[in-house]
Amino acid sequence: MRSHLTLALIAYFTLPAVADDPKPASTNVPRAEYPKVHADGRVSFRLKASDAKKVQLQPGGADNGLGKGPIDMERGGDGTWAVTTPPAVPGFHYYWFAVDGVAVNDPGSETFFGWGRQCGGIDIPEKGVDFYDTKDVPHGEVRAVWYHSKVTGKPRRAMVYTPPGYDKGTDKYPVLYLQHGAGEDERGWTTQGRANFILDNLIAAKKAAPMIVVMDNGYADKVGQPAPRVFDFAGFEAVLIGELVPKIDGTFRTLADRDHRALAGLSMGGMQALQVGLKHLDTFATIGSFSAPPGAEFDVEKSYGGAFADAAAFNQKVKLLWLGAGTGEERFLAGMKAMHAALDKAGVKHVAFESAGTSHEWQTWRRSLHDFAPRLFRD
Amino acid sequence: MRSHLTLALIAYFTLPAVADDPKPASTNVPRAEYPKVHADGRVSFRLKASDAKKVQLQPGGADNGLGKGPIDMERGGDGTWAVTTPPAVPGFHYYWFAVDGVAVNDPGSETFFGWGRQCGGIDIPEKGVDFYDTKDVPHGEVRAVWYHSKVTGKPRRAMVYTPPGYDKGTDKYPVLYLQHGAGEDERGWTTQGRANFILDNLIAAKKAAPMIVVMDNGYADKVGQPAPRVFDFAGFEAVLIGELVPKIDGTFRTLADRDHRALAGLSMGGMQALQVGLKHLDTFATIGSFSAPPGAEFDVEKSYGGAFADAAAFNQKVKLLWLGAGTGEERFLAGMKAMHAALDKAGVKHVAFESAGTSHEWQTWRRSLHDFAPRLFRD
Repeated sequence: MRSHLTLALIAYFTLPAVADDPKPASTNVPRAEYPKVHADGRVSFRLKASDAKKVQLQPGGADNGLGKGPIDMERGGDGTWAVTTPPAVPGFHYYWFAVDGVAVNDPGSETFFGWGRQCGGIDIPEKGVDFYDTKDVPHGEVRAVWYHSKVTGKPRRAMVYTPPGYDKGTDKYPVLYLQHGAGEDERGWTTQGRANFILDNLIAAKKAAPMIVVMDNGYADKVGQPAPRVFDFAGFEAVLIGELVPKIDGTFRTLADRDHRALAGLSMGGMQALQVGLKHLDTFATIGSFSAPPGAEFDVEKSYGGAFADAAAFNQKVKLLWLGAGTGEERFLAGMKAMHAALDKAGVKHVAFESAGTSHEWQTWRRSLHDFAPRLFRD
Repeated sequence: MRSHLTLALIAYFTLPAVADDPKPASTNVPRAEYPKVHADGRVSFRLKASDAKKVQLQPGGADNGLGKGPIDMERGGDGTWAVTTPPAVPGFHYYWFAVDGVAVNDPGSETFFGWGRQCGGIDIPEKGVDFYDTKDVPHGEVRAVWYHSKVTGKPRRAMVYTPPGYDKGTDKYPVLYLQHGAGEDERGWTTQGRANFILDNLIAAKKAAPMIVVMDNGYADKVGQPAPRVFDFAGFEAVLIGELVPKIDGTFRTLADRDHRALAGLSMGGMQALQVGLKHLDTFATIGSFSAPPGAEFDVEKSYGGAFADAAAFNQKVKLLWLGAGTGEERFLAGMKAMHAALDKAGVKHVAFESAGTSHEWQTWRRSLHDFAPRLFRD
């Protein structure tokens, strides 16, 4: 039997030579060399910190595709700390450095609003996958739209995707309201999620109907009231139904009826889609829940105000109910599957989607949008 | 003679009581308590860094309105470092912390692209000044517009302000092309500069003509060529004249002639306005230079390709030449004044503007835009 060394040498000389030519991540600021992504998905990070005693790479969250916890970096002679990770899961990962215990954003990275603040982030390409790339196809616009909210007593900003050709035409369009997750904001779906490029590419390939996508902030504290407890969506509901939908219908050329409105979101946004959307089926005929945190045990008779209690009535009223989760986010997947099984048993029509190998991260939600959007507004 | 203590006590009991009620800066991320701005403009910063040996507040640049160099912070018992600055100059200031020599963004601050990376920033209100506030007036939109550049071989993003009512009407609009400074990007004029709110407020008060404002990236490396030297604008010129102006005229309802196009910019963008704009007076009839770095000694006969050599011809062709600088940025002010004097002597019509008490910072450029915009497209 040949030794491992012999096998390795044979492999080395017989396999086609793949030059490891690591490239600056697409999420880097211009001219930043590091972090670099290797062909096999490994990532090399660098930080100069001459006087530090300990520097670690800190992926954001326990199920981050870069690794499951802080990763020690090694000090070089010139005070630059470095590490190369094992191959990372494809997609977008939040990260920062812990320098003697202080969270430090990588100056080489763009910033992305998550975890309630601006973080570094890195995008690891997925081989053979280009549905969220910036291709040379007609591009829609992403518009920052400001409006005054009486609910919160403050100005608010919504990000609005208008499809290619919107300005030149006179057509009216259906509208997808698309929400971010906890600790993120209205910028997340376009910066981390690349939702505009996903739509551009689907529309160019005629795989999705041209649509407007509205991405607002999921947080809304009612004016003059104490800050709401976590996952109390009363303020958001009041803004969405009473202010945002009328603002959008009053500003853009929309098909302003329930059949041409969908509400979807990721994580906390998925909770909002289910809790707020199922309560307002006169406003939205389509609901999408991407990786919503499982709450109390799902009860098809009683959950969500009994929205599913009459399956026949629900099936007639709702055009699409879409549920998804990644196979790498066990708790969310289990919650989604339990709801899926109960809805199946009760005869409630829906779609259940699993994102293979991805966790509670943006690659799951990019894939979710990529599966969800083509199913919308097909009439 | 009364002692200082007695005087202080008299002052304390006779002056009207002004409660010092410091407030989280408008540039903070949601729910971040620090940094806090006091009524008199002092600013309190905090950072938890238990294991650090030295923490300093680092204003971005030597003439930053927070202070002229690193400011030592003091360690509290719980490992939180703190400092309260003397009253700061009003306006927007870049800053970060130096933690044992490592540049660390304040997690309490939004991030702003400057110095070639994402930085913290703080906005100090100016008493009685509200021209850049987010008021309850009709708001224009800020649109991210993507296009493929043959010059750079890459996708590019321009930020485009469309005035209130653009979508509802059929009017055509004049266009101001407005450039950021070195180390910044196409986001600067709206995030740091609040250009959209300045225009919203001017238009609501009927002090400026409704206009489109196009803010592109001032960097453009020609594909297949070595990175250009600093302040070589050949790539930017090729993009602006050959790609961006046609893209904007092809996408938006513009008045597509030189009389209804202006080119302006701050610092490096001011150099671009002068160097590129004066070379392309068939494209732009109005030029605005906000705090352009002074180059070689200004020669009215020879500088800028001899654009000013024939004063009468220049005065007939150019609708407005606008020059400005802050009184706190001595070198830039001196350069602007030298050019102003030479142009006056030669009989070249222009406007010269000084921003009192502000330096090479965004408050100078907000004020510049606020003076410049009302003079545009008045026909």
